[in-house]
Amino acid sequence: MSMYRAPTRDLRFVIEELIGLERFSGLQDLEEITPDLLEAVLEEADRLASEVWAPLNQVGDRQGCRMEGGEMRLPEGFTEAYQAFVEGGWNGINAHPEHGGQGLPEVVATATQEMWHGANMALALAPMLSAGATELLHRHGDEALRARYLGKLVSGEWTGTMDLTEPQAGSDLGQVKCRAVPDGDAYRLYGQKTYITWGEHEAAENIIHLVLARTPDAPEGHRGISLFLVPKYRVAEDGSLGVRNDVHCTALEHKLGIHGSPTCTISYGDSEGAVGYLVGEPCRGLNHMFTMMNEARHKVGVQSVGVAERAYQQALAFARDRVQGRRPGGKASVPILQHPDVRRSLMTMRAQTEAMRALALLTAAEMDVAGHAADAAARQSAQRRVDLFTPVVKAVASDQAVEITSVGIQVHGGMGYIEEVEAPQLLRDVRVAAIYEGTNGIQAQDFTLRKVLKDGGETLEAVLGEADETVEALRRDPDVAPLADGLAEGVATLRESTARLLQDGAEDPLVPLTAATPYLMQAGLVLGGWLMGRAALAAQAGIRAGSGDADFYAGKLHTARFYMRHILPRLHGYTPAIRGGSDELEAIDDGHW
Amino acid sequence: MSMYRAPTRDLRFVIEELIGLERFSGLQDLEEITPDLLEAVLEEADRLASEVWAPLNQVGDRQGCRMEGGEMRLPEGFTEAYQAFVEGGWNGINAHPEHGGQGLPEVVATATQEMWHGANMALALAPMLSAGATELLHRHGDEALRARYLGKLVSGEWTGTMDLTEPQAGSDLGQVKCRAVPDGDAYRLYGQKTYITWGEHEAAENIIHLVLARTPDAPEGHRGISLFLVPKYRVAEDGSLGVRNDVHCTALEHKLGIHGSPTCTISYGDSEGAVGYLVGEPCRGLNHMFTMMNEARHKVGVQSVGVAERAYQQALAFARDRVQGRRPGGKASVPILQHPDVRRSLMTMRAQTEAMRALALLTAAEMDVAGHAADAAARQSAQRRVDLFTPVVKAVASDQAVEITSVGIQVHGGMGYIEEVEAPQLLRDVRVAAIYEGTNGIQAQDFTLRKVLKDGGETLEAVLGEADETVEALRRDPDVAPLADGLAEGVATLRESTARLLQDGAEDPLVPLTAATPYLMQAGLVLGGWLMGRAALAAQAGIRAGSGDADFYAGKLHTARFYMRHILPRLHGYTPAIRGGSDELEAIDDGHW
Repeated sequence: MSMYRAPTRDLRFVIEELIGLERFSGLQDLEEITPDLLEAVLEEADRLASEVWAPLNQVGDRQGCRMEGGEMRLPEGFTEAYQAFVEGGWNGINAHPEHGGQGLPEVVATATQEMWHGANMALALAPMLSAGATELLHRHGDEALRARYLGKLVSGEWTGTMDLTEPQAGSDLGQVKCRAVPDGDAYRLYGQKTYITWGEHEAAENIIHLVLARTPDAPEGHRGISLFLVPKYRVAEDGSLGVRNDVHCTALEHKLGIHGSPTCTISYGDSEGAVGYLVGEPCRGLNHMFTMMNEARHKVGVQSVGVAERAYQQALAFARDRVQGRRPGGKASVPILQHPDVRRSLMTMRAQTEAMRALALLTAAEMDVAGHAADAAARQSAQRRVDLFTPVVKAVASDQAVEITSVGIQVHGGMGYIEEVEAPQLLRDVRVAAIYEGTNGIQAQDFTLRKVLKDGGETLEAVLGEADETVEALRRDPDVAPLADGLAEGVATLRESTARLLQDGAEDPLVPLTAATPYLMQAGLVLGGWLMGRAALAAQAGIRAGSGDADFYAGKLHTARFYMRHILPRLHGYTPAIRGGSDELEAIDDGHW
Repeated sequence: MSMYRAPTRDLRFVIEELIGLERFSGLQDLEEITPDLLEAVLEEADRLASEVWAPLNQVGDRQGCRMEGGEMRLPEGFTEAYQAFVEGGWNGINAHPEHGGQGLPEVVATATQEMWHGANMALALAPMLSAGATELLHRHGDEALRARYLGKLVSGEWTGTMDLTEPQAGSDLGQVKCRAVPDGDAYRLYGQKTYITWGEHEAAENIIHLVLARTPDAPEGHRGISLFLVPKYRVAEDGSLGVRNDVHCTALEHKLGIHGSPTCTISYGDSEGAVGYLVGEPCRGLNHMFTMMNEARHKVGVQSVGVAERAYQQALAFARDRVQGRRPGGKASVPILQHPDVRRSLMTMRAQTEAMRALALLTAAEMDVAGHAADAAARQSAQRRVDLFTPVVKAVASDQAVEITSVGIQVHGGMGYIEEVEAPQLLRDVRVAAIYEGTNGIQAQDFTLRKVLKDGGETLEAVLGEADETVEALRRDPDVAPLADGLAEGVATLRESTARLLQDGAEDPLVPLTAATPYLMQAGLVLGGWLMGRAALAAQAGIRAGSGDADFYAGKLHTARFYMRHILPRLHGYTPAIRGGSDELEAIDDGHW
């Protein structure tokens, strides 16, 4: 039984037909995407993902990580699988060739990243966190630091970590206490960080920690936090590895899932102090961090889509095999795929997965435009969309992935509760995606306050204007015209919600905070509906072009219809909460709980 | 930190004030419920639940069960905790005194059962399954079998199991292959059953298995299945225990949760055949089983409410303690309970828990009337409501409990993903409730076809007529009048959905099968809204009576308001799916998936 195959056809469809390759034409310093190149890259990535990484997913869950004599033991095969990834050049796929990368667009990198997470989320976290650290160093590090560390981080020979959280500083990073004391050109770090993903391991030669800490004279709160690079092994000027730095994993978390990913408590400076180097400007650590936060959050959404895809594939395979019960009027037992409620369940998984995949890839495409368009206005406009879409991709995809993996369990019946199948692991693994890189509550706040209300709803309205065009295009084609009304109603409802929040929020800052999560969910459903509408149009175009992929296009049309009838209408459930103000929740006294 | 306290105040409120004690007056052969009696029973149960059972919940999860030399090792303390339960007389709380029970109403028993599950779901499964076996024996066993087995099952000195599932026979029990060969007055059983809850253990002296099997000359399919009683130790006429029967646990499942509950593969007749006794009529095994299925399904809903309550309590306690982030305009960090999104999250947990608790207790009250009213028409009418409500309680409460426990994780932030706190366990444990005793898809089918369409929607319409009265009563009271419109709209929508299904279902049997799950969810939301409306009215009455419980009543009003604004409107998300027919899902060809 195949455990996971990358959905290369749908990935290509979204990039080539839904977004359209013309979106990427004329971008500077980027390899041009051609259909042949895209197919070749995706097929090659699929081979590594499905043949090498995917079979290790359950191994990682069962064996987990453990500390032995101060050394981290990874699950069997993880080190070799990571090495194969590095040797394939996948780590630097979207990095600039001058740093040793492949210079491919972010949208292509995103497509491959979905595969790594679908194949083995715990292992894929290693390069995901490395990418964050690499990006920080690339943007804010000085020449010397970049020269010494960037190449090996891009190649993946070294991995990176993001060391933010402390026991008292989770969502509120202003509470960070970790200290950095000047010592010549460098600093000595003292303190403790928790929940450090891939904080310690031997799969790479060195680990580069990017750490938030305070210098002695820094102001309190979030304005006093700086960013430091702390290598596990010190690096000489010639790039050779030196002595072990005073940074150590002191505990390993026992988590609900992603057991193959070592989540560490990291201690700095238990003896002589951990040598660290300032990255960027002093006291600007949080600002620097937020410049790459968007990317990390986007990747969490991509990861959620990958795991959801795997859950769908496994539930579908089970539903094809499992014979149980009869159809109305039928005499013989049938595969449960024939039962309407199972079809509904599978489509519930698939429709949400495909909608969020489309939004995740569209966001990546906007990153490419934002970074590489010749025209400054085009770059700015694209960046605003990246900013707008990112919390949606992160939070809506991860919330939906929890539902999708839970439905996947349900399709398996009693077997779905037994750890012999992968279904329970997929729920346990993906559950973290709603929490880390900013909880989904934080995403909702970011989306509502900073991404919508702050610009008076302008960026969102521009997108909704395009959604109006999608509605009109659907109406013009009789084969997909029935999809138009639901989408039009969704767009209108979201517009009204936005208008109300702009008005109410100006009077009372608590109103948008109260409405944030329902509002984000409503926006996510409507954006998903917009893209499924576009997908239906692209599929119709494909059918008319007679390109020979008739089954794929037919499946896409079914999925779009299902989305409009079964998923999109959920948006109405959020409307009263969005428009209900904050008084009712505020009125709950302490003794009323 | 308190891990769990039984919600005795809300349990009493629902029974005394929402349902009303007058509902129980004049019931025959039942101990009369007085406020004093109810309070005494619930307080006493809470002591055992919160002080003895609750602290073992995490112990059970961590230690799990294991087989050692053919003996089942339970987690530490489980045997003693079960013994304390038996000695307290809790097992037979609702059994007739002639069998050694306490003769208390089902509604009181249900209130205590919620506590056992909230305190320790894995352990509470032992008496829950025993109750099913006891009920079967009580209703269908002959005098001799009842005389020999019933007393010890009622007291809890022996436990019982329900042995239905086989690898090829899950939702479709007609596929059962287990054989029963006549041997004098008894039978010899041969075969294998899977997923047998508490199938083997040493916490009780004997285990009484109720087993579905086929006699040699029985017809194929579900009409050829009989029910047998198979004791672990054979029982002599004087009640003393004899030799070990040929029934053995051959494997223990490795499950997502409820690790403290031994889920066994049971083998019958590996050597001389397992001695079993026919219960009820030959070839009527499935019918007999279904007579008690309602009760078991009701208990799964009660269990879901119990675990949801525990999740709420723990999330609330965490939110009171955890200081992180500021309020708008505030200078100091505050407990996260002060953040609007956390308040919304906690209320999302609480409102659904209280609505389903009310429906579960109301169903139990209808069981009391159905079993004990003097008037036959009253008994029948109540039984129809029991039948109608049961799949709603089972499926909606269990689905909501998955959401509630997941929100509980979310409130904990990063800590919620670590197995050090109980939040992840509660999700893992309660996830099974949507699967066993008939998957929620099966419940939806049962509700839609057998409980609504079969009687032309009459029973449901009678309930909705009462909901109309609730709407009117809300409108008459200005303090709660704002709750009326949403409820009225919900009732109208459900009516229209029902009318459409009656019409469309008459033409195409696939339509109600396709609509079943969305329809059940819509019905559950509306029934919950009806009861939260009644709860608001009862709370208003309590406030006016000035009974000194002002905080409790205020909290209840907040919860009802929240339900109407945040939870009930979800019903609109299901409408297009309910009314959309079956064509779209049926049109998906095999190659389109």
